[in-house]
Formats: sequence, C-alpha cells, structure tokens
Amino acid sequence: MVLVKTMYRNPKEYIDKEVTISGWVRTIRSSKNVGFIEINDGSFFKNIQVVFDSSLENFAEIGKLAISSSIKVEGLLVETPNSKQPFEIQAKAVTIEGMSNSDYPLQKKRHTLEYLRTIAHLRPRSNTFSAVFRVRSVAAHAIHKFFQDRGFVYVHTPIITSSDCEGAGEMFRVTTLDMKNPPVTEEGKIDYSNDFFGKEASLTVSGQLEGEIFALAFRNIYTFGPTFRAENSNTARHASEFWMIEPEIAFAELVDNMDLAEDMIKYVINDVLENAPEEIAFFNSFIDKGLLDRLNNIVNSDFERVTYTKAIEILQSSGHKFDYPVEWGMDLQTEHERYITEKVFNKPVFVTDYPAEIKAFYMRLNEDGKTVAAMDLLVPGVGEIIGGSQREERHDVLVEKIENMGLSKEDYWWYLELRKYGETKHSGFGLGFERLIMYLTGMANIRDVLPFPRTPGSAEF
Amino acid sequence: MVLVKTMYRNPKEYIDKEVTISGWVRTIRSSKNVGFIEINDGSFFKNIQVVFDSSLENFAEIGKLAISSSIKVEGLLVETPNSKQPFEIQAKAVTIEGMSNSDYPLQKKRHTLEYLRTIAHLRPRSNTFSAVFRVRSVAAHAIHKFFQDRGFVYVHTPIITSSDCEGAGEMFRVTTLDMKNPPVTEEGKIDYSNDFFGKEASLTVSGQLEGEIFALAFRNIYTFGPTFRAENSNTARHASEFWMIEPEIAFAELVDNMDLAEDMIKYVINDVLENAPEEIAFFNSFIDKGLLDRLNNIVNSDFERVTYTKAIEILQSSGHKFDYPVEWGMDLQTEHERYITEKVFNKPVFVTDYPAEIKAFYMRLNEDGKTVAAMDLLVPGVGEIIGGSQREERHDVLVEKIENMGLSKEDYWWYLELRKYGETKHSGFGLGFERLIMYLTGMANIRDVLPFPRTPGSAEF
Repeated sequence: MVLVKTMYRNPKEYIDKEVTISGWVRTIRSSKNVGFIEINDGSFFKNIQVVFDSSLENFAEIGKLAISSSIKVEGLLVETPNSKQPFEIQAKAVTIEGMSNSDYPLQKKRHTLEYLRTIAHLRPRSNTFSAVFRVRSVAAHAIHKFFQDRGFVYVHTPIITSSDCEGAGEMFRVTTLDMKNPPVTEEGKIDYSNDFFGKEASLTVSGQLEGEIFALAFRNIYTFGPTFRAENSNTARHASEFWMIEPEIAFAELVDNMDLAEDMIKYVINDVLENAPEEIAFFNSFIDKGLLDRLNNIVNSDFERVTYTKAIEILQSSGHKFDYPVEWGMDLQTEHERYITEKVFNKPVFVTDYPAEIKAFYMRLNEDGKTVAAMDLLVPGVGEIIGGSQREERHDVLVEKIENMGLSKEDYWWYLELRKYGETKHSGFGLGFERLIMYLTGMANIRDVLPFPRTPGSAEF
Repeated sequence: MVLVKTMYRNPKEYIDKEVTISGWVRTIRSSKNVGFIEINDGSFFKNIQVVFDSSLENFAEIGKLAISSSIKVEGLLVETPNSKQPFEIQAKAVTIEGMSNSDYPLQKKRHTLEYLRTIAHLRPRSNTFSAVFRVRSVAAHAIHKFFQDRGFVYVHTPIITSSDCEGAGEMFRVTTLDMKNPPVTEEGKIDYSNDFFGKEASLTVSGQLEGEIFALAFRNIYTFGPTFRAENSNTARHASEFWMIEPEIAFAELVDNMDLAEDMIKYVINDVLENAPEEIAFFNSFIDKGLLDRLNNIVNSDFERVTYTKAIEILQSSGHKFDYPVEWGMDLQTEHERYITEKVFNKPVFVTDYPAEIKAFYMRLNEDGKTVAAMDLLVPGVGEIIGGSQREERHDVLVEKIENMGLSKEDYWWYLELRKYGETKHSGFGLGFERLIMYLTGMANIRDVLPFPRTPGSAEF
C-alpha cells in the first residue's frame, strides 16, 4: 500500500511501477468502455486520478459507485504530461471495500459553510475542511516545535478549576450534584461541600496563573490546551470552547515578551507555508485572495511597537470618524485596532502600556502609576490576536491591586506566595489558537476552524 | 545571559569566560570569607555551583539569603576537575532580584510526596518534580513528533459533549443553570433546553468517536487532550482529569493497531532516554532502582501477542492461586494482568480478542461471534497501559450491538452514518498519558505526575 502523499512527494520512485492504494471516491465518471475516478486517500490534500476500463470484470459495478465509497486500487502509475495532474493510475483491479449511498450529503457541488456545519461528521472530506484541519494540525505541531526547540517546558494546566483567573465570571459550572434536589446549607445556599470536588468547580478560562507557577520553576514554559467561556455571544469570532497557547517566561520583561510573540508568529507562518503549501494555495485561490501576500508580508516585516498613549494620539489626529469616539482611558474597539494595524502601519503592531483600569489585576504597574506593562498584538484583517503582559511580581503592589479590584486575597494565596519566595520579573501572553488558524487560512468564522464547535445552543457531535 | 543547560551541553564554549546567569538559590552555605550557592535556573535539571567571597561588597547579605531567593550572578566559569560537578562560577558580582523568606516550605530535607502535594505551587522547584514535569514535557513532544513524522493529523476532539462514548455514565455535568432554581419541564424534570447548549452537556470521557470521523477523512489521525471521569475512586492510578492520546487509523486491522502501539511506546521511551538522561538517571537512583533496566528491556524486546483465550489457559494452568478465580468470560484483574506480563513473559504483552460481553459496543465482532477484535497492552510493573480495538465498521452489526447494549440508535446517528458512506476497516487505541509518565519515571501515584491533580474532594490550585 502506498500513500498518495508519498507518490506526490517522490514521484520518481513510483512512476511506471505497480502501486496499490486505498481511499475514498471523490468524483467518478464513466462511459461505455472507460471510466475515471478521483480518489483521496486521506494522506494528502490532492486527489489522484484512476483510469479503469472494461477489461475489469467489475467495470459496470465500479462505474456506478456512489461518491465517498471506499475502494482499493491496484495498477500502474504513469506520467500524464499533458494533463492537469502529473500522473495517474491505470487500474488493473479495483476492489470495493465500503459502498457509499446515493444520498451522500456531500455531492460535488457548492455547499454553504452553514450547511456543512450540520454535517460535521462528513465535512472533513470536503476540500475546504480537509485543508482547514490539516493546517490546524500542522500549526499545532509548529507551536510545539517552536517552544520545545527553545527549551520551553510544556505544562498541562488544569481544566477543572476552583479559581477564576480573570476575576471575570462567565464560567461553566462542573458538578455531579443532583440538579433536582441539590443539597443546601442552613442559609439556604447550594452546599458545594457535597459536590464532587468538595467545593464549587468550573471550567478554566486561562492557565496563566498556574503557568506562572511553572515559569518560576522551569523559567520558560508554555501551555497549549482547551479553555472555556460561558459567554452568550454569537459572533464569528467567539466559541465557548477553544484552544489557547500561553507561554510564560521568567527573568523577562515586556520587550522579551514581544520578541517571543513576534518570533513565534513568524515561525508558525513559515512552518505552515513550508509544510502545507497545497492547502495555503487552495485558500489563496478560493477563500481569501490576499492571503499569501498577507502572510508573506508578516514574516518579512518587523512588527511595529507603539504605546497605547501614542496610539490614541494617532487615532485622534487621523481625521477618521470612528463610531466610538477616541479618548485616553477607553478600551480600543475593533475599528480602532484595525485602523492602526491596517491603515496606519499596514503590518502587525504591538500596542503597549494600557491604562491600568481597563486591564487585569496581574499586569505590572508602570512607574507612571497609571499604565500597566501590557501588550496586545494587532494584525491586519483580524485585529487583536495576542494579549499579554509583564506580571506584577511585587507582593505589596499585587495585594493592593487585588484589593482595589474587589477580589479576595485568600483566593489568591498561592499566587501571592510566588511573590514571597524568590519572585522575579516575568512575562507571558495568550494566543487564541483558532484566531491564528483563521488568520492562516482566511476562514472568516471560528465555527469553521474548530472540528466540532461549541457555541451557545450548540454542542452537536 | 547564559542558560545553565547551554553551559552543560557546550561547556567548551564557556569555560574560562565571563558568564552571567540568573536563577533560584537551591542551597547556600558560607563561612567568614567564602560561600557556595547551588543555583538552578530552570533550564536544566542540574544546578550550577557559584563560589563567592568577601571581595563582594554585599558578601554578608548574600550569605544570609533564604533558599529560593532569585539572583543574578556575573563571574568566571572555571573547570573543577576534582569536584562532583564539572565546573563552577567564580562570582564577580551577585545581584539579588527577589528575596525569599526563611519560612520557605521547601527546605533542603526529605519531604513526603503527600506533603508536597499540598504545596503544588512550589513542588516543581524540588528535584523530584522538576524531573517529573520535564519528562512529562519531553514525552508529550515525543508523542507529537512520532505521529506528525508519520503524517498523522492531530485533531482536537471536543471537551464538552452531549454524547457518552462508552455508554458508561460517570460524567461531569457542564451547566450554567441556576442551581437553586433550575427550570423544570411540565413533567417535573430539569429543562435542559434552557441550559447553555440547549441540551444536557458533560465533559468527555474519550475523543474516540469523533476521532473516527477524522480517520475516515484523513486516514491516520490522533488526539491528545484532557478527558474526565466522575468516578469516586481514590486510588493511586485514577484521576478525575487526565490526558489521553487516541490514534485512529483507517484501512487498518487489529495487527496494524498493535504494530502502531508498539512502535509508539518504543519511540517515546527512546526519545525520553535521549532527551532527559539526567532525569531518568535521577529516577533510577532515587525513585525506582530497576527503572533503566525495565525501559531498556522494553525498547529491545518484541512485544508478546496472545489471545485472551490463550491467556486464560495460561493462568488456569499456572498453578498460581489468584484472589479472583480465573474463568473464560471474566474481565482480567490487575493481578492476572501483572502475572501474565511479569511472571509469564517478563515483557510487554498484547492480549487480544476478548469476550464481546465485557467490551464496548464499538469493537468489531470476530467471526466466532463471541469475541471482539480488542487489544490491551500490559506492561511489567503497571499492568494495562493501552486499550484499543478494531472498530465495528459493518452498519447492521453495529446497530445490533447498540440495541443489544440498551443504547439509543438515535444518539449515535452520525456514528452510524460513517458506516453508510464509505466505511472501511479501521482501528485505534487509547493511551493514558499519566500512566505512561508513571511508567517512564517510576512514580507510583498519579497525583505526582499531574501538575495539579483533580481527584474526588480535591481541585486545589
């Protein structure tokens, strides 16, 4: 058995030789004496053409195969210099392994992405999703290679948690309590001491705080795992379950953090361009005509770095009329972010040093006492793709920030202890993996880069 | 700034040169004029020794540093041919970055593993856990390399699910309903149509069924993600949240499945022996004296393959008295598994073709009508480490098995449709990642190979 990918990568080894392949019928047509099948064997984005003729005893049966039937083909691989494809197989035998049915929902015609979501068990067999999910796999591996090659320790931070990293709520409860008759305390509250973990538990929104624990032992670490938001927002950019990459580096300031993020983004893009060229070419032709230019632009440019204060000045003096008026202290809206990265700089931009009031408690307070050492990476076409910061390592400053934000010091006892036993400057960021995949493929809806998306009202498959 | 790992790996580049390092104090002792610090900088399992003397203006202050303080050291790296360590740094300047406190809970003495679990935010700084979690990271990357090098597509199967792979229950509920006043239907049941996903949702116990979707598009795929069991069992081998690797291969039978599992186990062990030799040497000396022999034995032996029926015969004729009497049809207990792999074969053993009645509905029924094409991999010292099977690809047989087990056909509509549209023979297995890490390190409790273990009654950090 030869894989189609192997034949495409090393055709000389197989040309004019007998080969055996197995795969699924993507298209089929036949006339009286000859037929053509495009087969995809799952190993490669491209199909291979099989020519079969009436010398096969099951010629008639083969000609009637429904799309997606699985077959085994033995035959001769020959070059086809005058065709679109470089070679084809002249079949000597075709064996049917699994018949498909004529009601196969993925017929060779244009389906809407919305329809394809309803058949998530079959859409990976379409060109578009075959490309999306292969790029997803290549990019995931690129992330691991990038960090591991640099000596970063991969840490599995917990999914079920009893703490709330952002202090932001919007978490899913995890419970084994009887929903109909939950135990209650004397005060009439739900008695979570009887729940599975002996306390209230939720799905994590971030592994950052636990990541800091590991950075303060292993210096350079990263997480790569699922995170959750119980946010009832039905947009093309939000999912309830998504994967996040969160590196954390010790003895490192904000500038090191930006360098790391820039290196990582460029590494992953280069790796995908190298290892999934057929898929990227497909996206560039059929999904997003500017994709390849945009990706090349990114790997070849030095990312811009500008403070929030400077960005506000640029926006205010731009003469552009924004829906949200621009003033210092506000959070940047998508329209502002895109204006900065697309109109002003036309390349990725780190915006740094945001007002402390609009950022999380763990970000390091700057000397000015009103901004924090935060950074967001904005990219053309998408907006924010990375958010990070230098972490507040000073015990007393951190306690003050926790109290000012109305959080409970006790809930963060171990996070605070990290600042008692050999604190160091340290920094980190979070990259939403799906946002990255959208960026790499040009796919516009997060539902189409997740194998089985979970969104409000939807947890199918 | 030089990393300690870099110095250990390429000492010649740094010997007799000025170097600057930063890290945490592991031990410190000083007399009137000279002091010694063992520093760990997080990049490497081993420490580096720093010698400092009274020529430093802050000599007295340095000498009083508490363990785990973070410091920066500038000095000369010199060889120390007569010492335990190959080189040391003669300090010209030591800068304190973050003071630790004298009540630091990880003093240089023997702590119990149970105690260390209560300080999971600090235990990664101990020798044992520094080694465990670095091996965990190396092994995780080895898994990815193994599959990606072979063209497998990595798929993120969903964590939140509305289906129950095993049909076994014991799942955590995921909900945003008000626990005190949940909506109820007219029949008085909880009305999950008002819950976040519009139906009852849980944490996945396996990504296998969704993995099959991807295998029937990409041929060879693997998952690597967290899975959950709401099982109230407090053993050294069970956790409520753990990571699992589940490859699935199309056009493949049970024998291909076993070949893949054997190759993978050997690959990961070899990779860890190569990339974490210091850690493995540590485990072999301090945790499990037979570890290195056992690992070498595995990579150098052909795994045994024996049917369940044959295994039962072997056990029955062994003359050994088991707590659970041996008879055909029973599930093998740990005592039986360990007897087979340790006493009978003294190497890893695949036991295949189990009685259909004790295995899951999706396993392929053999020609004999009473066994299924299942395989468990048993290894000396641990017992079962992998469970897998060829999947039932025949639509009608599968429907019958689903109905016989009292499951609902409708719940598996998409799983059944995979058998309508080009089914193929396919196989797969599941490897519990923590079991593998226990095996690689000799650590006896699953709580000590998970960064932040979740078990009944415990979800700290």
